[in-house]
Amino acid sequence: MSYFVRVNMSEGTVKFEEVPEKYRTLGGRGLTSAIVCDEVPATCHPLGPNNKVVFAPGMVTGTAAPCSGRISVGGKSPLTGGIKEANAGTPAAQSLARLGIKAIIVEGMPREKGSFYLLRLSKDGGQLEPAGDLVGLGMYEFAGRIKAKYGDVDFVACGPAGEKLLSMAGVCFNDKDDRPSRYAGRGGLGAVMGSKGLKGIVIDSFGAPGVQVVDPDLFKTGQRKLVEALREHGVTKPGGTLNTYGTAALINVLNEAGGLPTRNFSAGRFDGAGKIAGETIAEIISQRKGKGTTGHPCHPGCIIQCGNVWARPDGSEHVSCLEYESVWALGANCGIDDIDAVAELVWICNDAGLDTIEAGVTLGVAMEAGLIEFGDAQGAINLLKECAKGTPLGHIIGHGAAFTGRAFGVTRVPTVKGQGMPAYEPRAVKGIGITYMTSTMGADHTAGYTIAPEILAVGGKADPLSPEGKAELSRNYQATTAFVDSTGYCLFITFALLDIPTGMEGMVETVNGVLGTNWSTADVLEIGKEILKRERAFNEAAGLGKAHDRPPEFMRYEPLPPHNSVYDVPDEELDKVFGELR
Amino acid sequence: MSYFVRVNMSEGTVKFEEVPEKYRTLGGRGLTSAIVCDEVPATCHPLGPNNKVVFAPGMVTGTAAPCSGRISVGGKSPLTGGIKEANAGTPAAQSLARLGIKAIIVEGMPREKGSFYLLRLSKDGGQLEPAGDLVGLGMYEFAGRIKAKYGDVDFVACGPAGEKLLSMAGVCFNDKDDRPSRYAGRGGLGAVMGSKGLKGIVIDSFGAPGVQVVDPDLFKTGQRKLVEALREHGVTKPGGTLNTYGTAALINVLNEAGGLPTRNFSAGRFDGAGKIAGETIAEIISQRKGKGTTGHPCHPGCIIQCGNVWARPDGSEHVSCLEYESVWALGANCGIDDIDAVAELVWICNDAGLDTIEAGVTLGVAMEAGLIEFGDAQGAINLLKECAKGTPLGHIIGHGAAFTGRAFGVTRVPTVKGQGMPAYEPRAVKGIGITYMTSTMGADHTAGYTIAPEILAVGGKADPLSPEGKAELSRNYQATTAFVDSTGYCLFITFALLDIPTGMEGMVETVNGVLGTNWSTADVLEIGKEILKRERAFNEAAGLGKAHDRPPEFMRYEPLPPHNSVYDVPDEELDKVFGELR
Repeated sequence: MSYFVRVNMSEGTVKFEEVPEKYRTLGGRGLTSAIVCDEVPATCHPLGPNNKVVFAPGMVTGTAAPCSGRISVGGKSPLTGGIKEANAGTPAAQSLARLGIKAIIVEGMPREKGSFYLLRLSKDGGQLEPAGDLVGLGMYEFAGRIKAKYGDVDFVACGPAGEKLLSMAGVCFNDKDDRPSRYAGRGGLGAVMGSKGLKGIVIDSFGAPGVQVVDPDLFKTGQRKLVEALREHGVTKPGGTLNTYGTAALINVLNEAGGLPTRNFSAGRFDGAGKIAGETIAEIISQRKGKGTTGHPCHPGCIIQCGNVWARPDGSEHVSCLEYESVWALGANCGIDDIDAVAELVWICNDAGLDTIEAGVTLGVAMEAGLIEFGDAQGAINLLKECAKGTPLGHIIGHGAAFTGRAFGVTRVPTVKGQGMPAYEPRAVKGIGITYMTSTMGADHTAGYTIAPEILAVGGKADPLSPEGKAELSRNYQATTAFVDSTGYCLFITFALLDIPTGMEGMVETVNGVLGTNWSTADVLEIGKEILKRERAFNEAAGLGKAHDRPPEFMRYEPLPPHNSVYDVPDEELDKVFGELR
Repeated sequence: MSYFVRVNMSEGTVKFEEVPEKYRTLGGRGLTSAIVCDEVPATCHPLGPNNKVVFAPGMVTGTAAPCSGRISVGGKSPLTGGIKEANAGTPAAQSLARLGIKAIIVEGMPREKGSFYLLRLSKDGGQLEPAGDLVGLGMYEFAGRIKAKYGDVDFVACGPAGEKLLSMAGVCFNDKDDRPSRYAGRGGLGAVMGSKGLKGIVIDSFGAPGVQVVDPDLFKTGQRKLVEALREHGVTKPGGTLNTYGTAALINVLNEAGGLPTRNFSAGRFDGAGKIAGETIAEIISQRKGKGTTGHPCHPGCIIQCGNVWARPDGSEHVSCLEYESVWALGANCGIDDIDAVAELVWICNDAGLDTIEAGVTLGVAMEAGLIEFGDAQGAINLLKECAKGTPLGHIIGHGAAFTGRAFGVTRVPTVKGQGMPAYEPRAVKGIGITYMTSTMGADHTAGYTIAPEILAVGGKADPLSPEGKAELSRNYQATTAFVDSTGYCLFITFALLDIPTGMEGMVETVNGVLGTNWSTADVLEIGKEILKRERAFNEAAGLGKAHDRPPEFMRYEPLPPHNSVYDVPDEELDKVFGELR
C-alpha cells in the first residue's frame, strides 16, 4: 500500500490519502511535476497560500536497485517563477519510500505568521509539532539536535535561508552519516518550505513495510544488468573517474576545453584550476589523512560513490562534499583558488541552507558589481554569511544572481529564467547552452547533460563549439533526463547507460519490475517528453515563453576567451527544441 | 525643418538627422514607441548597450495650443522589462520643439564605465561635455548649478538614483521657475539615462525658429474651441476643481468611494484622509502665506494650472508640487497623515530623482515587511534617503515595490508587470484595474483613466464596483490616451473633451493644423490603437504575455474594506481588452 501524505499548514492536519490511479506509475520528478501542474495555479505567488511543495522519492527508490536513493522536490519556483524540480540523493528518500510514502504534499500557510513546525513521519502515521526551538539554527546544529532528540532518523529541512524566504534557499537532506549535506538545491524550494512554516520533516523508518515490487524476478534481472554496466564503465566503475576523483575531476577537463566559467563568466579558463581540481582534492585528502575521505556515497546502495569528505589541514572533518559544481561556483567563478576557502564557502552554504551553484554565481555577480574583488576569499565568506543574518545585503545576495545583478545594475549576469548558470560555459559548449536556455527549470546542466558527448566522448562524440545538431541532442537528453529523474536513479548512471545498451535495458526492467509496467527502452524518451510537455505548459501559463528561452544578452555580443566565441545558436534553433512539443 | 538628434555615447557624437518620412506625423508617445520598436531589440538588457532612451515633445508642443507642453520619454523599462513611455509637462518640452527637435535618441554606452556627460543643445547644434562635477549632487543643487553656469536654459536630467541605476529613477525636467520638479517618473527611465552616462540635457532655446504650423488658420480655429471647452468644464476651468484644489482634490473623493489604497492596499479608506486632502492643502497654503501658492502651471500656456507650491509653517518654500498621486503614495498608502512629512518625502524624491508613486508603493511594501511601522513618517524619510546613498538597503528600496517585496518575501505586493499601482484601488474601481493589468506600461492610471466615468461622472457614468462593460471602456480610454500622449497635450484636457464634443474637435484641428494631416475625431481611437498594437508587439517579444496582464494574486482572494470586494474581473475579460489587437 502506498500513500500521499497531505499536510495542510493552515489547518495543521496530516492526512494519508490513497494514491489516485493516474499517479500510480509516476515517481520523482514525473510525480512532483504532475501534482504541481494539477494543483498549483501557474500564476500564484510562489510564497503565497496557493503554492505547494511536493516531495516524491523515485519509482525504484527504497529498493535494492543501485544508486537509486534520490528524491524530487517540486513546486512553483520563487527563483524562476516557473515549475521547479530539484532532487537529491539521501537515505531520507529511501526511508520515505519504504514507509510507502509516494509523495508528501504540503499546502496552505501557517495560521500564525512566522511560526514553524516539524512534520514527523513513521510507520504509525504523521503529525505536526511546533519547531520554534529549531528556528534560526544553522543546519549543522539542527542536525545535531534532531539526532539527539529523535535518534536514528532521517530528515528534510530548510535552513535559515529558507526561513527568511530567500530565493536561493535549497532543501536539505541528511547524508548517510547524518550530515546536513545533501541538497535539492536549485530554484529556491527551501523558501517555499519556509513560507509554509515547515521547518523540516523527521522520518523514522523503523518497521517500515518496504517498497512493493510487482515482479521481483524482472526487477532482479534488470538490477543485475544495471550493476554490471555501472561496474564496467570507466566513469562509474569502482576505481573509475568519479569514484577516485569525485565530480571535480571535471575542473581540469573543462578548463582544458576552455569551457570553465571563470570570474563571472568573463573567461573560459582559470589559471588557478589545478589548485581546486578533483585530482588535487583527492591528493590533499589522502595527504591530510584524518577524517577526510574520497569515494563517499550519499546514500546506502550507491556503487558509484562520487562524494568525499574534506578535512582541514589538521585532519579534522571540514565539510562534505566538494563536488564539481560547488568547487567551480565558489572557486573558479569567483577567481578563488584556495581550496580550503572553497570548502569553507561550501560549509556556509550547507549551514545556511543555500544552493552552492546559485551562491557562487551570485558572488561572481557581486564581484562584478564591485562589492568585493575577484579572488577575495575572505570577502566572499563574509558576504555569504550575510544571508543567514538577514541583513539588507543578505536579502540581496540571498535572492540569487539575477536579483543581485538587478540590485547593482550589472549587465553581465549569467542566468536563464532567473537561475544562475552551472559550471559549463555555453559559448564554449553550445549544446549545454541549449539545455540552459530551453529547460523548464532555468539554467540547469542536469536537465539535459549534453556534456557527455560534447566533452566526455560518452554516448558518442560532438564538437562542443559547433551548434550543429545540438537542438535535437539537447531535446533527447532533456527527455531522457526527465525519465531518469522520475526513477529515483542518480543521473550519473546514464554515463554507463549511454555506452552500454544492456545497462539501459536493466534500468527499464527494474522500473517495470517495481511498477508492473511494460515499458521498452524506446518508451523512456516518450515518457520523458510527456513530462516536459506538462512542465512547459505550466511555464507558459506562468508567463515563461519563447523570450525566456534565451541566453543572457551579453553572451550574444561578448566573445569568450580562449575560443573568442559568442553564443551563436540562433533563436530559431532554440525554439526548435520544443517546437514539436508545444 | 525638424530633426532627430542622435547621441551616441560610445562614440561621443551628436548628429542632427533629417526626420524619416514615416515618422513625420508622429510625436510624443507615438514617436518614442515607434523608435523604440524599430531600434531596440525587445530582449535586450535595459541597462545594456542595445537599449536606447528617446525624448520626444508632442505634435503640437511649442505652439500656442493650451496645456501642450508635454514631452515623452521612451525606452525599454528596467522596472517592467517592457516598453515604456513616461511624460511630463515642462518648458523643456516647448524649448526642444521650438528648436525643431522632434526627438533625441540616445544610444550606446559611455566609453569609460561610470563616466557622465551633459548634452548641450541650442539653435547652433549640440555637443557632449563632461559632467563629472555634477555627479552625486541632489537635483536641487544640480538645478542651481545649471542656472548659475548656463543662465536661462531648460534641462532634463537623472538624479543620483538614475546614476545608481535604480529602477525607480525618473527623468527630471525643470518647471517654469527652474525647479527640478517635473518628472517623467515611471518605469525607471532615469536609470536608462544613467546607464548611458547621460547626466542631463541643457537646452538653450534662444533664437529658436519655432514650430512650423502647416495650416495656421485651422490651428487657430481648433485652439479656440479647445480653450473654450477647457474654460467651460467644471474640472478644468479657472477657479474649477483642479485649479483651486489641485489634483489632491481626489483624496476625499476616492476615500469616500472606498477606493483610496491605504496602508499598502489593505483598505480602501484612510482615517487620516482629511488631513492630506486637496482642500486641506489649499487651505494651509493660504493660511501660511509666504511662498506657497495654488494654481501653479507646470509650463507656460497651461490654463488648467493644477499645480502648487507648498510652504513650510514659516512660509518658506518647501516643495512643488503636492499632487494627488504623490500625496496618496507617500501619505495614505504609508498610513502617514502629516502633510508636512509628505511634502518632505516628495522633496526627497525630487532631489534624489525618484518616481513618487513607485517610492510610496515601495515604502508601503517595506512597512508590510516590517522594516518600519505604518505611519512612521520619520522612518519613511530615513528609508527613502537610503536610495541616494547607495547603501544595500537603498539598492533594494530603489528598485521599487516588486523588487522590495521579493527581497523580503512579501506576498501583498500591489504591482503589475513589476510597476507599483497608483492611487486607485482595483478592487473598488474595477475599470481602472483593467487598465492597470492590460496597459503596455504596467500598472498605470494615466494609461486609460476610466476613473472619469467610474468616479467623477465625466464622460458618462459607470458603476465602479461592477466589472460590466469595463473591458471595452478601458480599451477605448487606453487608445484615446495613446493618441493624447502623442499630441503633447496634458491628459487633463480630456476631462473637458469627454463632455464637450467641440473641445475634442478643437484638439484634432490643432493637430491637423500643425501637421497638415486630415484626421477626424474618429481617427483618434484608430491611431491610438495602432500605437498600442505596436507597444504590445514589443512587450510580447520581450516576454510579457497574457500571464502578465493579471492582478497581483492577493487581490483575487483578499477582500478590501469597506466594500469587501475582491478583484473579480475574470481573466477572460482581461484578455478581451486587446484580444482584437493581437
